[in-house]
Parts: sequence; structure tokens; C-alpha cells
Amino acid sequence: MRVLGVDPGLTRCGVGVVEGAPGRPCTLIAYYVVYTDHGDELPARLLHLDRSLTELVAEHRPDSVAVERVFSQHNVSTVMGTAQASGIAVLAGARAGLPVQTYTPSEVKAAVTGSGKADKAQITAMVTRLLRLPEPPRPADAADALALAICHVWRGGSRSKLAVAADRARRGGAR
Amino acid sequence: MRVLGVDPGLTRCGVGVVEGAPGRPCTLIAYYVVYTDHGDELPARLLHLDRSLTELVAEHRPDSVAVERVFSQHNVSTVMGTAQASGIAVLAGARAGLPVQTYTPSEVKAAVTGSGKADKAQITAMVTRLLRLPEPPRPADAADALALAICHVWRGGSRSKLAVAADRARRGGAR
Repeated sequence: MRVLGVDPGLTRCGVGVVEGAPGRPCTLIAYYVVYTDHGDELPARLLHLDRSLTELVAEHRPDSVAVERVFSQHNVSTVMGTAQASGIAVLAGARAGLPVQTYTPSEVKAAVTGSGKADKAQITAMVTRLLRLPEPPRPADAADALALAICHVWRGGSRSKLAVAADRARRGGAR
Repeated sequence: MRVLGVDPGLTRCGVGVVEGAPGRPCTLIAYYVVYTDHGDELPARLLHLDRSLTELVAEHRPDSVAVERVFSQHNVSTVMGTAQASGIAVLAGARAGLPVQTYTPSEVKAAVTGSGKADKAQITAMVTRLLRLPEPPRPADAADALALAICHVWRGGSRSKLAVAADRARRGGAR
């Protein structure tokens, strides 16, 4: 199973692609950080993010997409931009017809480190080890996206695939 | 100038289209509320909203799009969905190559009622009067979107058009 993970952000959006199966080691396919300029207007930033994510989904053809869930208790000055970026990320997967699953930061931390309260350094260390990388992913923003993708592989993306199919059948195409 | 206004929401997203010029009366073209089912998964909801807004932009070919700016001090339980919906709305305009402007609720209220602290009933009453409608827009969610569009017409959308063009020229097409 190939999973594209997205750690959403308006200024820096981490993207990680891994391949694997539940209970087996994952393999790194690629990782990226999509940057948008803080000085640009919001429409241009969201458009750039949408195009970049759409391109990466088309390029890597993942079986599913995993996106970090955003909470309002995050940094208030950036949370709105992060929420908008997460909406764009979920949409990029859905527009490609892929199942999209969201995970809380604690779920991701628990999946890769065994603790829902692990810090950033611990996540980076575990991602480096789990993917057998010669050195930590740079920039560090990509490590969270890779952790998300690993989390989704290990939790088995098939459940959400069924859910999405059922959802589609139920909804039909009505506006 | 034709403006499409969006009052973003995940469960109910108001859309209003008006035509007019600064300092002149506006004319109603159309209004809608896009609904998504609270029981559906987030990807399906965002996809539905994206498709609906993209269709409405294509159908009405506005000169610009106005979207209400979301603040984190709103209702915490719904603010993330509202922020994601606003990101989708801004993106729908940007993807169509249109200038997109965001306005705070106070700016919109001040534009149509003269007071930044007007309540919902007052906004609906003024939108009905300003557009010379025989009765208030139903459902009421559409009134805020129409108020946004009127606000944008009166403040003259051309400034943001220039800003977007300058922005585009400056950014180029780089990822």
C-alpha cells in the first residue's frame, strides 16, 4: 500500500510518501515541503498549495491520503491558515478519487513512538529509524508527514476505503 | 461588476451573486445555500462543497469573488470546519483565475447597515431593501453572502484585481 501523508501548513506543508503493509517495515518513496510566501495574498497561497499537492498526488499515485487533523487549541495566530491548508489537502486527495483519512497528532505520535506525548525530535528519530534512512529527513517538517503516512499504513488504510465507497454509494452525485 | 459572495460554512455555505457599481444600487442575480450532510465524512463534504462552488462560479462568471474571513474566536466546535470551507471557497475563486477578496464580518455589516455591530435581522432587512427584493432571501444563510457581495461591489473590486495581477507577475509559476 502506498500512502501520501500531509502535515498541513500554509507557510510550510510537509508531504511524505511511503509504501508498506500493516506490521511490516515501510519504505520511503519521497518527501517534500511545499512553501508559500507569507507576503503573498491568501488566494495565491492556497492556489499554489492546491496545485503542488494535486501534482504530487498525480505523480506518486498513492492508494490513500492521510492528513493531520487540526485543533483550535493550536497556536491561534496560525490555526486558521493551518485549517485552510488541511482543507486543501483533504480536497486534493478526494478530488483524485482517493480515500482520505485524518489522524490526530497523538494518534500519529503513538503509532510511531509508542507515546501520544512524544516530542518532535523523538518523532524524527523514529521516522529515520523506521524507514532505515541514513540521516534524518531535511527539512524537519517532512518528518511529521512521513510519520502520518507510516501511521496510516500500519493502521491499515482499507477500512477507510470501504467507508468512502459506502459513503459515495449512499450520497450519489447530488449537489 | 458582478460579484459572487460566499459566507463559508461546512454544513451550510451561503452563496450570493449581485451586479452593480460603487455608489449605485446593486441587482440580485441569484443566491444559493450549499448543504453538506453532517453525517458524511470530511473528504466527501469538502469535495461536494468544492464542486458546487466551482459550478456556481462557472455558471455565473463573476468578475470577482468575496469570502468572509473566519476568526478563531468563533464557535470553537465549528470553527475548524468553517475555516476549511473558507479555504475551499477562496480556492474555487482562485482556480477560476478570479480576484478573491476576504472581508471581516464587521466590514460587511458596516458596509450594508452603517454599523459594524449590526445583528443578523438587520443585515437581512438591509439586503432585502438594497436589492429591492419583494421579501427577505430564504434561507436566511444566503443573506450574509449577498451582503458580502454588495460590500465588495461598493468598495470597488478593482483594487484587489490589480493586487492579484501584481502578485501573479511577482510570483511566476514556481512550485
